[in-house]
Amino acid sequence: MAYSLRALADYLPTVGMPCTLHGDAERQVDGVATLEDAEPSEISFLANPKYEKALETTSAGAVIVSNDQPIPDRLTVLRAADPYAAITAVMVHIYGYRRHGKTEIGDRAVIHPSAVIGENANIHHGVTVSANVTIGKNVVLYPGVYIAEDSRLGDDCVLYPNVVIYDGCILGNRVSIHAGTVIGEDGLGYAPIGETWHKIPQIGIVEIGDDVEIGANCAIDRATLGRTVIAKGTKFSNLVTIGHGTKIGEHCMFVAQVGIAGSVNVGKHVTMAGKVGVAGHLTIGDNAQIGAMSGLMKDVPPGVAVLGSPATPIKNALRSFSLVERLPNLHKQVKQLEAQVEALQRAVDARADEKQ
Amino acid sequence: MAYSLRALADYLPTVGMPCTLHGDAERQVDGVATLEDAEPSEISFLANPKYEKALETTSAGAVIVSNDQPIPDRLTVLRAADPYAAITAVMVHIYGYRRHGKTEIGDRAVIHPSAVIGENANIHHGVTVSANVTIGKNVVLYPGVYIAEDSRLGDDCVLYPNVVIYDGCILGNRVSIHAGTVIGEDGLGYAPIGETWHKIPQIGIVEIGDDVEIGANCAIDRATLGRTVIAKGTKFSNLVTIGHGTKIGEHCMFVAQVGIAGSVNVGKHVTMAGKVGVAGHLTIGDNAQIGAMSGLMKDVPPGVAVLGSPATPIKNALRSFSLVERLPNLHKQVKQLEAQVEALQRAVDARADEKQ
Amino acid sequence: MAYSLRALADYLPTVGMPCTLHGDAERQVDGVATLEDAEPSEISFLANPKYEKALETTSAGAVIVSNDQPIPDRLTVLRAADPYAAITAVMVHIYGYRRHGKTEIGDRAVIHPSAVIGENANIHHGVTVSANVTIGKNVVLYPGVYIAEDSRLGDDCVLYPNVVIYDGCILGNRVSIHAGTVIGEDGLGYAPIGETWHKIPQIGIVEIGDDVEIGANCAIDRATLGRTVIAKGTKFSNLVTIGHGTKIGEHCMFVAQVGIAGSVNVGKHVTMAGKVGVAGHLTIGDNAQIGAMSGLMKDVPPGVAVLGSPATPIKNALRSFSLVERLPNLHKQVKQLEAQVEALQRAVDARADEKQ
Repeated sequence: MAYSLRALADYLPTVGMPCTLHGDAERQVDGVATLEDAEPSEISFLANPKYEKALETTSAGAVIVSNDQPIPDRLTVLRAADPYAAITAVMVHIYGYRRHGKTEIGDRAVIHPSAVIGENANIHHGVTVSANVTIGKNVVLYPGVYIAEDSRLGDDCVLYPNVVIYDGCILGNRVSIHAGTVIGEDGLGYAPIGETWHKIPQIGIVEIGDDVEIGANCAIDRATLGRTVIAKGTKFSNLVTIGHGTKIGEHCMFVAQVGIAGSVNVGKHVTMAGKVGVAGHLTIGDNAQIGAMSGLMKDVPPGVAVLGSPATPIKNALRSFSLVERLPNLHKQVKQLEAQVEALQRAVDARADEKQ
Repeated sequence: MAYSLRALADYLPTVGMPCTLHGDAERQVDGVATLEDAEPSEISFLANPKYEKALETTSAGAVIVSNDQPIPDRLTVLRAADPYAAITAVMVHIYGYRRHGKTEIGDRAVIHPSAVIGENANIHHGVTVSANVTIGKNVVLYPGVYIAEDSRLGDDCVLYPNVVIYDGCILGNRVSIHAGTVIGEDGLGYAPIGETWHKIPQIGIVEIGDDVEIGANCAIDRATLGRTVIAKGTKFSNLVTIGHGTKIGEHCMFVAQVGIAGSVNVGKHVTMAGKVGVAGHLTIGDNAQIGAMSGLMKDVPPGVAVLGSPATPIKNALRSFSLVERLPNLHKQVKQLEAQVEALQRAVDARADEKQ
Repeated sequence: MAYSLRALADYLPTVGMPCTLHGDAERQVDGVATLEDAEPSEISFLANPKYEKALETTSAGAVIVSNDQPIPDRLTVLRAADPYAAITAVMVHIYGYRRHGKTEIGDRAVIHPSAVIGENANIHHGVTVSANVTIGKNVVLYPGVYIAEDSRLGDDCVLYPNVVIYDGCILGNRVSIHAGTVIGEDGLGYAPIGETWHKIPQIGIVEIGDDVEIGANCAIDRATLGRTVIAKGTKFSNLVTIGHGTKIGEHCMFVAQVGIAGSVNVGKHVTMAGKVGVAGHLTIGDNAQIGAMSGLMKDVPPGVAVLGSPATPIKNALRSFSLVERLPNLHKQVKQLEAQVEALQRAVDARADEKQ
C-alpha cells in the first residue's frame, strides 16, 4: 500500500511526533529503506551523522531528518525532533509487525490434559505443553517449543521455534522469545566435596515480566532458591546468558553475548553493550551504562558509565587505553632521563673532585 | 513434607557432616530459602561472608552457619564445618532432584529398528534415534532430541529438549545435557587453497565421561581425527564451546561462555570462570584456575591461577591492572622529572660557564 | 578400504598436489590419524612444527611431510609442498564427507501445499516447510528444522537438526548449517521513547551465499531494512552472532563466539579468531586478520592484522602487552630517578650555598 507524504505528515503528530513537510506533499511512498538503498518510491531517514553524506546521493522519495539538519535543495524532507523515533512510527504504520499465521496443524502438538490453554492460542505441530501449564490468550507457540510442568505464560506471548521453558517458570504478557532460547535450565550449582562436584538441586524458577523480548539461543538459569528475574520491558539480543538468582531490572537493554553470573542485582534501564561479563553477587545501579566487552568485578553506582576489563569509569578507561598505547614513548622518556641524570651526576661529581 | 531441626541434625552426620544444633530442636521446616527470602517455616544458610549482615534481619526458622560464626542470640542455628555442603545435603534431603515423568507418547518418537534401547528408557515424542544407536537403561530423551547414527549413550543419561548428538559420539553413564546443546558437530577444519577454504572431513567423535553435566546451548566439536574428550565428573555452564580434538580432564568446572580452541589439553580439576578463551594446541595443567575473561595464549602449569588477556599469574595480573590505573600519575611524575632535570642541567651548565 | 602408498602418491598429483614417495610403495593404509594415535595401517601428517618430535615415536605406516622436513630414516613418507592440503585430499579420498541417509519418514514432516520442493530433497520428520518456500534439489532438512514463509534454499543445502530459518531469507547452493543455528531472527532494534524501548519492525532479510558453512548454535539477525549478507565461501564456527544489516564478504573465516554488531561491512577473506567483538557501523578491509578476543572500535584497513581490546596493529599490541607486564619495573625506575634527582638537587643547592 502506498501513502502520500501528506498522509504521513498528518499521521506522525497523532502518535506524538509533530513534523513539518518540505517538498512535494502528493508524492507516494510504499516502503522504507536506508539512504543508500532507497528508491524513489521509498522514504528514508538520517539518524546517525555518520551517514550524512548519503543525503547528497540518495534516490529516496523523501527523507526524515532532524529539525536543524542542512539538506540539499532537491530533497523532499519531513523534519521531526527525533528522526529515529519518527521512522520507527512510519515503519510500524506501513509494515506493522510480523503476522503469525493461524496454524491448522495443532492436532499434532502434544498437550497434557491438565494444561489450560487460553482463547485463540496458536499451538503448532511438535509443541509440548506439559502438565499443569497455563497458556494465555493469543499465545503463539511455534514448532518444537517445549513448555515443562507447572509453567505459566501470560497473554499474547510469542515463542519462536525450539524455545524451551523448564518447569515452573512464569512469563508475563506480550513476552517474545526468539528461536532456540532456553529459559530455566539448572544453574552451575555444585558443592565441592574433595575433587568432585556435588550437584545442588536447583529448585527456584525464572520469572519474566511483561513486554520482555529475548533474542535467539540465549540461556537463562533458574534460581537455586527463589527466582531469577527479568523485569518488564527489558530486551536482550542473542546468545545472552544470565546466572541463577540474578535479578535484571525494568527496561534494560543487553546486546549480544552479554554474560551475567549468579546472584547479581541489575537496576532499571541499564544498558550493556556486546560481550559484557559481570561477576557474581554484584550490584549494578539504575541507568548504568556498560561499554562493550567490559568485565565487571565491582559494583557500579547508578548512572555511571564504565568500560574496560576490569571496568572503570569511561573517562578513566579511555585515558588508560590511550596511555597504554603511549607506553613505548614513556619507556623512551625514562631511558633518556636516566642517561641525562647519569651525565649530570658525573658532572657534579667531577666538580666535587676538582674542589678536593 | 516438614522436618524437625532435630531430624536434620540427626541426618547430616549420616552423610559425613557432623553438626551441632543451637535452639529449638522441635521447630519444623519444610523448605530452604536465602536469608533474605526465608520464612519461619524455612531453613537458610550463610556461606558467603558478603551476606553476614542478613543474619540480623532474616526471618528464617533456622540457619546453617560455620562452627565459629558469631550469631544474634535469637537465631536457631545448625553449626557445621562447611555450611555450603551442609545446605546442599539438606536440599537434596528435602527436595531431591528433578523427577522425569514417564511419558505416554513414545509412539510418536522415530526409532530406527536397528537401535538398541535399554530397559525403562523414557523417549518422548519428536525424538529421533537413528540406526545402530545404543541407549542405556533409564535414559530420558526429551522432545526434539536427535541422536545420529552409531552413537552410544550409557545408563541414566538425561538429554533435555532439542539436544542434538551427531553420529558416532559416546556418552557415559549419568550424563546430563541441558536443552539446545549440540555434541559432535563438525569443527572449523578447512585447508586454505588460494583464497578459498577446502573442507577437511571431520571423521573423529566426541566422548563424554560419566557424571558430566553440560549447560544449555553449548557446542562441542567432534575431532577431525580421533576424539574430543570431556572426562568424567566435569561440569559446564551455558554457551560453552570446545574445539575439535580438545581433551578436558576429569572434574573440571567451566562457567558460561568459555571457549576453547582445538587440540588443547586441559588437566584434571581445572576451573575456568566466565568467558575465558583458550588458543589452540595449549596445555593447561591439573588444578589450574583461570580467572573470568582471561585469554590464554601460553600453557598454564599445574596449580597456577592466572588472569587477564593475555593471562599472567593472578598476582602479576592484579598488579598490572592497578598499575595501568595509576598510569596517569606515572606520566605526571615523568613530566616533573624532566622539568627538574632540565633545571638542574641549566644550573650545572651555568656553573660551568662561570668557571670558564 | 585400503590404499597402497603408491596409489595415494599417484592420486595426489591428479588433484594438483605433486608429491614424492620415500619408502615401501606397496604398504597399505586404510585410515588417517594424528602422529600420536596412528597405527601401522594408518597414514599421518606433520603440518604444525609443534608436533615435529612425534616423528620419532609415531607408529604411523606413512607420514605426509613438507619437501624439506628432516625425518628419521625408518619413516616412510610422502613429501608434498603443503602437507595440510595433501592430508586433506587424502582424507577426502579415503573417507569422503558425511553421507546423509535417505529418510523414510518424510510423511511426518509438515509441508505447506504452496511450498516448492526440489528433486531428491530429503525432508525428515518434524520438519516445517511453510507457505511459499522454495527448496532446491538434494537438500537435506534434518528433524526439527523450521523454514518460515517465503524463504528460498538453493540446491544441495544441508540443515542439521533444529536449525531455524525465519521468513523471507535466502540461502544459496551447498550451504551447510549446523544444529541449533538460527537465521533471520529480529535484531535488537528499538527506538528509545522515555525509559521504554519501542520495537522497530525488522522487515529486512538474511542472504547467505553459495558454499557457506555455519557452526552450531549461531544467530544471524535479519536486517531492519534491506539485507544482512554472508557472502559465498565464508565459514563460521559455533556461537557466532551477526547483527542486523551487517555484510560479511566472501571467503571469510570466523572462529567460535565472534560477535559483530549491526551495519558493519566486512571485506573479503577476513579472518577473525575466537571471541572477537566488532562495534556497529565499522568497515573491516579485505584480508584483515583480527586476533583472538580483540575488540574493534575503529575501522581496520585492508590487509592489516590487529589484536587487543581496543584493537591496534598486532606489533603495537604485542609491544603494549609486554610493556604492561614490565610496568612494575618502570615504576621502580621512576622512583629511583626521583631519588637521584633529589640528591643531585641537594648537591647543586649546597654548592650554590657555599658560593654565597
